[in-house]
Amino acid sequence: MAAPAQNLRINGDRLWDSLMEMAKIGPGVAGGNNRQTLTDEDAEGRALFQKWCEDAGCSMGLDQMGNMFARREGTDPDALPVYVGSHLDTQPTGGKYDGVLGVLGGLEIIRTLNDLGIKTKHPIVATNWTNEEGTRYAPAMLSSGVFAGMHTQDWAYDREDAEGKKFGDELKRIGWRGEEEVGARKMRAFFELHIEQGPILEAEGKDIGVVTHGQGLSWTQITVTGKDAHTGSTPMPMRKNAGLAMARILEKVDEIAWSHAPHAVGAAGHIEVFPNSRNVIPGKAVFTVDFRSPELQVIKDMENRLRVAAEDIVDNMGLQIEFEKVGGFDPVKFDEGCVAAVRDAAERMGYSHTDIISGAGHDACWINRVAPTAMVMCPCVDGLSHNEAEEISKEWAAAGADVLFHAVVETAEIVE
Amino acid sequence: MAAPAQNLRINGDRLWDSLMEMAKIGPGVAGGNNRQTLTDEDAEGRALFQKWCEDAGCSMGLDQMGNMFARREGTDPDALPVYVGSHLDTQPTGGKYDGVLGVLGGLEIIRTLNDLGIKTKHPIVATNWTNEEGTRYAPAMLSSGVFAGMHTQDWAYDREDAEGKKFGDELKRIGWRGEEEVGARKMRAFFELHIEQGPILEAEGKDIGVVTHGQGLSWTQITVTGKDAHTGSTPMPMRKNAGLAMARILEKVDEIAWSHAPHAVGAAGHIEVFPNSRNVIPGKAVFTVDFRSPELQVIKDMENRLRVAAEDIVDNMGLQIEFEKVGGFDPVKFDEGCVAAVRDAAERMGYSHTDIISGAGHDACWINRVAPTAMVMCPCVDGLSHNEAEEISKEWAAAGADVLFHAVVETAEIVE
Repeated sequence: MAAPAQNLRINGDRLWDSLMEMAKIGPGVAGGNNRQTLTDEDAEGRALFQKWCEDAGCSMGLDQMGNMFARREGTDPDALPVYVGSHLDTQPTGGKYDGVLGVLGGLEIIRTLNDLGIKTKHPIVATNWTNEEGTRYAPAMLSSGVFAGMHTQDWAYDREDAEGKKFGDELKRIGWRGEEEVGARKMRAFFELHIEQGPILEAEGKDIGVVTHGQGLSWTQITVTGKDAHTGSTPMPMRKNAGLAMARILEKVDEIAWSHAPHAVGAAGHIEVFPNSRNVIPGKAVFTVDFRSPELQVIKDMENRLRVAAEDIVDNMGLQIEFEKVGGFDPVKFDEGCVAAVRDAAERMGYSHTDIISGAGHDACWINRVAPTAMVMCPCVDGLSHNEAEEISKEWAAAGADVLFHAVVETAEIVE
Repeated sequence: MAAPAQNLRINGDRLWDSLMEMAKIGPGVAGGNNRQTLTDEDAEGRALFQKWCEDAGCSMGLDQMGNMFARREGTDPDALPVYVGSHLDTQPTGGKYDGVLGVLGGLEIIRTLNDLGIKTKHPIVATNWTNEEGTRYAPAMLSSGVFAGMHTQDWAYDREDAEGKKFGDELKRIGWRGEEEVGARKMRAFFELHIEQGPILEAEGKDIGVVTHGQGLSWTQITVTGKDAHTGSTPMPMRKNAGLAMARILEKVDEIAWSHAPHAVGAAGHIEVFPNSRNVIPGKAVFTVDFRSPELQVIKDMENRLRVAAEDIVDNMGLQIEFEKVGGFDPVKFDEGCVAAVRDAAERMGYSHTDIISGAGHDACWINRVAPTAMVMCPCVDGLSHNEAEEISKEWAAAGADVLFHAVVETAEIVE
């Protein structure tokens, strides 16, 4: 494949201006965004993206999940398109870059090709996947999941928000339910640029993360049952303290995750005790253990060791325990050719880079199941995301989009 | 002092019938009671108690905190009265015996003396202390606390419930604010019968707990501050997991309490993590450590060791910690003479008994500061209290009231 010359760059100012313009739609209360999926603000953001794409000469496709596909034609009518994108929806208190950078980075590639009069053999399609965040309609990555055959469309349409409004009805209401069959498109490749949502790149001073894997995830909700009792009148030997058993299990979670350093992680973010009163020994503790690793075998090992260790702890204390698997997905290994295209692009342009594993889920994790896929990451300040204070620099955004541009255009093959 | 003959007993059936009759006022939803302080139901319960006392020939005194004093005259007009009682108010989901047994046990003493035509030199006063539970108006033992000079009456009147209604206003509204100055009464002694609210007596098969001490209490609210971060994309070495630090501190709490076996206890009943989301490492944990011991020096030692251990834990993890003392009272040592009267009474009547330390707070703990005081405890099923399922047997109630009767009447001195 013919790679772009190393001096070809996207227009970082234009990309940044577009990010700021999009951020005006569905503003948050603290400088970020609240542009949740299938709201009026989502519709407004989609319309702006469509206008920009049409101004750039693209045709817009829309499927029955509301996924948007802005196509810049290639020279070969039979060549499979290269897809590039992410999502425009945000968390209720979300940032300006999570998802949006990947969609507008795709548009910026097309704008740059137009500026330079470059043609590619394969069409390039800038994509906006519906409802990546999953906060209004669980689960996350819903529409890329339907596209990749992970969920049925009927099931997705029946998802309800907190007010009981169905996904399918709301998609129709905002006017963005298309006719096109979901998942019918075939891709030469899919590339996604995303902010890291973690602290590694900033801490290591790297411009670019070359994403080789997506971590697999295992969520186990644990319920420890002891006995509510008065904190004053219950002697130590007669206590069945579910909170103390939980504390001991949390220490084990940490120990197990560290034993698979450096890539495995483990913690409990969700913790509740009952009745949660200062003078009652907790009779029940409910908490969710989150284990992640890029290796399926490691996840299984961590799950098994947690179960054995936790059962041992509660047995010794005379308590009961229940385990419920409440979430999980297998690790993702991105396409070696696409990953190499990203790494080579960073190298060619002189950006510092490191291989990285995505700890969060992304649309690319599902699309990887149906097309060769890779991701580019750029740093974000303090690793902060899903927070209105989420921040990146214009230079980081431009570097990420430059690498995305080179990887996509090389894969789409420049026509000399 | 002349002790009653060992064959003199209270009427256990009548006591039980009165308990069941009182329990009809402010019934709970699950077989217990919701007769919270200064509600219409509290007023109704007070009226029934007053009627019973007047039927037994008593005069009723009422002070400005609503404390009720039903007096059976003695033969010596100058002799200080012996007080006996507890509280008629309940938790919102409370039991039928917590407090009520002590008040109606006092009434049963008077009824029994009437039955037998026994006169005492000292008057006997059956007492109902207002708002022992503290759930509607914090703190617990409010009115016995004002009586003992622990709080001012103005401060007590200004206490507000969850709807913003003031204690003083509600006391007046239900018609039970008296004219008498609070704390003006002088006592020869005060005795309180109460269910154990713990599992010791039932487990040891004892009829009677001779309460020698009330445990001192120390509540320290701890706030550990780390950093919210994504559970997937934050490597283990970069985490500031406040939930994990809390787990380690909870293990230390347990270790410190055990080091002062058998009487000291320690646990955290109140535990919260923030933002409490499955995929966010807790950036903050707030929890309250409850330490108790009958020895002030032990409480101080536990507080100090907790502080040192917790600071060490968070320092090692790079987190911050704050300590706030949110509650406490000093240990109580009951009057040796009154305690001996209780122990001798149990012994004389052939009830199995053991010295015991009260883990919970009681009106007697405050009254002990202004008068010679002791407590009698009877077992409760499974140690359960502050729960509608709270249960005792008729025999346990009668045995407790028998011992109360003998201790009170011996102190009041039978006139031959």
